[in-house]
Amino acid sequence: MVDQTEGRFAAPAPDDAPVPVPAFRWEEPPEGPMVVVLDQTRLPVDEVELVCTDVPALVDAIRSLAVRGAPLLGLAGAYGVALAAARGYDVTEAAEHLAHARPTAVNLEYGVRRAERAYRAALRDGADLERAAAAALAEARALHREDAEASERMAAHGLGLLGELLPGGGYRILTHCNTGALVSGGGGTAFGVVRAAHRAGELRRLWVDETRPLLQGARLTAYEAAREGMAYTVLTDGAAGSLFAAGEVDAVLVGADRIAADGSVANKIGTYPLAVLARYHHVPFVVVAPVTTVDAGTADGASIEVEQRPGHEITEFAPPTVPGAGAEPGGGIPVAPLGARAYNPAFDVTPAELVTAIVTERGVVSPVTGDALAELWAGSASTSAGPRSGNGMMGS
Amino acid sequence: MVDQTEGRFAAPAPDDAPVPVPAFRWEEPPEGPMVVVLDQTRLPVDEVELVCTDVPALVDAIRSLAVRGAPLLGLAGAYGVALAAARGYDVTEAAEHLAHARPTAVNLEYGVRRAERAYRAALRDGADLERAAAAALAEARALHREDAEASERMAAHGLGLLGELLPGGGYRILTHCNTGALVSGGGGTAFGVVRAAHRAGELRRLWVDETRPLLQGARLTAYEAAREGMAYTVLTDGAAGSLFAAGEVDAVLVGADRIAADGSVANKIGTYPLAVLARYHHVPFVVVAPVTTVDAGTADGASIEVEQRPGHEITEFAPPTVPGAGAEPGGGIPVAPLGARAYNPAFDVTPAELVTAIVTERGVVSPVTGDALAELWAGSASTSAGPRSGNGMMGS
Repeated sequence: MVDQTEGRFAAPAPDDAPVPVPAFRWEEPPEGPMVVVLDQTRLPVDEVELVCTDVPALVDAIRSLAVRGAPLLGLAGAYGVALAAARGYDVTEAAEHLAHARPTAVNLEYGVRRAERAYRAALRDGADLERAAAAALAEARALHREDAEASERMAAHGLGLLGELLPGGGYRILTHCNTGALVSGGGGTAFGVVRAAHRAGELRRLWVDETRPLLQGARLTAYEAAREGMAYTVLTDGAAGSLFAAGEVDAVLVGADRIAADGSVANKIGTYPLAVLARYHHVPFVVVAPVTTVDAGTADGASIEVEQRPGHEITEFAPPTVPGAGAEPGGGIPVAPLGARAYNPAFDVTPAELVTAIVTERGVVSPVTGDALAELWAGSASTSAGPRSGNGMMGS
Repeated sequence: MVDQTEGRFAAPAPDDAPVPVPAFRWEEPPEGPMVVVLDQTRLPVDEVELVCTDVPALVDAIRSLAVRGAPLLGLAGAYGVALAAARGYDVTEAAEHLAHARPTAVNLEYGVRRAERAYRAALRDGADLERAAAAALAEARALHREDAEASERMAAHGLGLLGELLPGGGYRILTHCNTGALVSGGGGTAFGVVRAAHRAGELRRLWVDETRPLLQGARLTAYEAAREGMAYTVLTDGAAGSLFAAGEVDAVLVGADRIAADGSVANKIGTYPLAVLARYHHVPFVVVAPVTTVDAGTADGASIEVEQRPGHEITEFAPPTVPGAGAEPGGGIPVAPLGARAYNPAFDVTPAELVTAIVTERGVVSPVTGDALAELWAGSASTSAGPRSGNGMMGS
């Protein structure tokens, strides 16, 4: 099942740098500035770019999920404000539209407000509209850079952790959902670590959970893995058990939507069964997430409110070839009886005791405890969060 | 999440008997005998019946998976021979075609040979062609009856076991794949037990794993549950973990494709993770299967050869609304990048130590050991297979 060559594994040749996924970019052609986004609802069938020359077009792209993923939404918000300012639209109105394009997306409003504040501060300091617009764009670019840097640090810390946990190298990593460049200004979280392992020539295979119901694994992670030239294999979420039983998984790497103060991890539905399987088979289960994911205001896993999503995501199949097919009930192809009730939580919660380590841009927390997370959150996490056999806190 | 009324649960009213699922029937209209099958590839969207007046039509229905499931294939084989005999076709040729319509389906050939033997025995005993045809039909009907009786006994034993394991009643049962009347001459295996609990007014909820990649849970089990008027809910396979964590699952009931001599159970892919979750959460994991499923020639779980199915079942979605969409690569809607490799084992293997009990038509084996299974196989299993706290072997 595994191709092995001289103890090392397929890595990109030095002159064959992977093509970055163009999920989102700012362009300034002669006809004026624009935001160009990859329509993720059409992947992996079609690579369609949406060119947004005004804020309503960008808001539509956000609402239709063409642009998705918490960090990327933050960038969309910030660049959207910069676009409005550069094009001479009403910045206040644009900021309101953008901030509320998806009500529960905290990062979106965060990005909007950062660019808006920079714009207003410039005006207060006597800048003209053009210079204020430049300040908004500079702030969007700063956020973009921060995101990319955090990704790079997480990737480096994660790669170091894998080296400690699996000294033999040649990792066979199982991942779930999509955590790469499509959702981030940089290389992503868990997928960023996988990419670092691949570039180091130490990725033997990436096992990609398809991640029902929306198939972000099969559609998006596989797409990114293919572009990187990784040895990857897609599987149904239920098939992961057989891989563990066969000893084909060396580590599980996943992202996180929210981490409670006690270290409980909320992530895409289907993550918790992987954690239980990993424990049963003595395989490391590693969470990769920026420090901002740790929510000190949520005490524990039980306090995390789980979003229940519409049942039609399960009872109907929405083809990626049909734009907007999954937006409303009745828009997809039925795969359950009419009127079937569905249980469709967006994510599940994995308790800290099942998590081997949490990798952040500031370092690795292992074992995962509330105290260690609090230290990290306070910014003092670059030293140590307590000893653990062969795997203490790693430097930042 | 659960509707509870006075300690009992929605059961069919006595004068509101559930409509049997017409998966397969023999008819004798004036224009001649025929086999009528429900086209299961079209469920749950369309209820289309295929009328087979000759063996080639029935072979087509078997090849296209319109008729599927081990016990039902056995009936198709037996009734197919009866059809050929009744219509005056060449019975030897018909039997060969039927027996090899799907090469790995052991039950299919078993059914064919039983009807064929009955036909030949009648001829040898001096019967004319018409009486020999009647003998073939009688044998098909006998097989049908045996199947239905085994289902009934499994349902009774299973219901008794649930009563022992869960004395509080009001069961919330999680099941996987399709094990009901659509694959059986009777009420099925695991689903038969669920139906018995429902008819006894003790089914609080049936949790239906959608069962990727072919969605037999969402498409077929949900269809049967809806027809029975059960309180049921469909979920993605990865969402089962959240239900366990929330204490919403009282027992897992699944069927089996094969049971090794040591009690290891091969069943639809995704079963093993449920067994691990059940163990982690101290929830009973029960297998329901006829004694013929126990394969004394397969020593242990590691000896079970796992069928690897085509990757396009995962990388493409085959709409049930499009006949034959999933038959060949390229016939479905792509949901992974072109050329994506997929891991698609048909089933997984659950070791005996994770199985709380195996329910057969001859009684219940618990704990599951090679010796207890051997006793059962030898036919002496109606007494006892060893003590187990609160749950010994039940009478046949």
